[in-house]
Amino acid sequence: MKYVRFRKDDEVYFGVLKGDSITQLDGDYIKGETRPLSTEFALGEVEVLTPVVPGQVIGIGLNYELHAKETGKPIPEEPMMFMASPSAIVAHETDIELPSIDHRIDYEAELVIVIGEEAKNLKKDEALSYIFGYTVGNDVSDRDLQKKDGQFTRAKSFGTFKPLGPVIETELDPNNVPIQLKLNGEVKQKSNTNDLIHDIAELVVKVTEVMTLMPGDVIYTGTPSGVGPLSPRDVVEAEVDGIGILRNRVK
Amino acid sequence: MKYVRFRKDDEVYFGVLKGDSITQLDGDYIKGETRPLSTEFALGEVEVLTPVVPGQVIGIGLNYELHAKETGKPIPEEPMMFMASPSAIVAHETDIELPSIDHRIDYEAELVIVIGEEAKNLKKDEALSYIFGYTVGNDVSDRDLQKKDGQFTRAKSFGTFKPLGPVIETELDPNNVPIQLKLNGEVKQKSNTNDLIHDIAELVVKVTEVMTLMPGDVIYTGTPSGVGPLSPRDVVEAEVDGIGILRNRVK
Repeated sequence: MKYVRFRKDDEVYFGVLKGDSITQLDGDYIKGETRPLSTEFALGEVEVLTPVVPGQVIGIGLNYELHAKETGKPIPEEPMMFMASPSAIVAHETDIELPSIDHRIDYEAELVIVIGEEAKNLKKDEALSYIFGYTVGNDVSDRDLQKKDGQFTRAKSFGTFKPLGPVIETELDPNNVPIQLKLNGEVKQKSNTNDLIHDIAELVVKVTEVMTLMPGDVIYTGTPSGVGPLSPRDVVEAEVDGIGILRNRVK
Repeated sequence: MKYVRFRKDDEVYFGVLKGDSITQLDGDYIKGETRPLSTEFALGEVEVLTPVVPGQVIGIGLNYELHAKETGKPIPEEPMMFMASPSAIVAHETDIELPSIDHRIDYEAELVIVIGEEAKNLKKDEALSYIFGYTVGNDVSDRDLQKKDGQFTRAKSFGTFKPLGPVIETELDPNNVPIQLKLNGEVKQKSNTNDLIHDIAELVVKVTEVMTLMPGDVIYTGTPSGVGPLSPRDVVEAEVDGIGILRNRVK
């Protein structure tokens, strides 16, 4: 199922997307069981919002071998966690704003985990059952601040730096799915989640060793090689097969 | 005013503390104006909770010169921001749990800013007016994981690693206030917030250059020199003059 949150005539709705048609649901799918209503919307007539409004945004650094190599950093023995501000999250088709034109600010296509249930100290064989589904993220990063600070939080938390969406797919094998990113139509990143150094279940296990995850929290799982800078007026499309295309323009 | 959140007979209340007496309020002081009710409680008969339940927990690294020196790191030109999980927050008199006895896990007494209004891109002369008040924090840190990860999020986000409280003081000059920490009664950290490299208004300005802060978000402003390891059964007391003593035992 492809879950979508959207706005129509100033009202926010939750729905299920099939083709170009959305069936409205009776509530927020993150908060519990939902049932379809009889109302249908055409995808083209609504504003797609982020499919979830996360409380916590966790990111994983250097989780594809070729990307670790391109940054010149050693591969982390354990998942390298950081957090970004939820205020950086924006929807599909929202503009990315560059706070500085002097800094190098990169795109990063990522598979994103959406948590479905409160989770702490999970074991590997139960981890996937706490996941509601998967969406696509762009982990936009100010490389100059990332280097200057050492800590990633500031470099990755500017408003509009965390595009997320357009939908949450609940039936996906997260461990063998093509992921790519196009900049102005040209493929810049191309990989498969089977190249993840620490796989989806392991990430959830390691994060919940530390913190308690709540429904709606998201984990950006890391980006493949091929990262590069964004410039004003660029169109950036992050895509995970089976989920969809997350498209944003640079202001 | 000293604001306090507390539990009595399985109910959660908000109040104002004067001496050892709490006057109950008609609502959550973080959410808006409150008025005193006629009910009084004795401090000794209630369970003190964290004075706020933050959505975002921001920390500032290396913000006292002598602490930067004791870690052997250069003083950051701009405030070094990181985020920790709100699930690490615990109240005064709650036990700190050490996830590993092999790791060095340190105490860090800190003045903590509590945000009162939604804040983005603040100017220095308006920054203090967006602050609700100040409380005391202990930024407990796994030094081994901090070194291993580079990123501070994991090292500082284990459950119980962010003691906070006991009260929020709304009438405090944050820039000239003694701060200290006692371990088993012995003074280990002793400084004054006038030693902060980046002062309170500057921290709020720099954080809101990046992210939107919401009422109840907290900023741990950094720790003075004198950090050291915790061991099972230690009693650790972080104190900021004019706010109070945040006491926790190590399990």
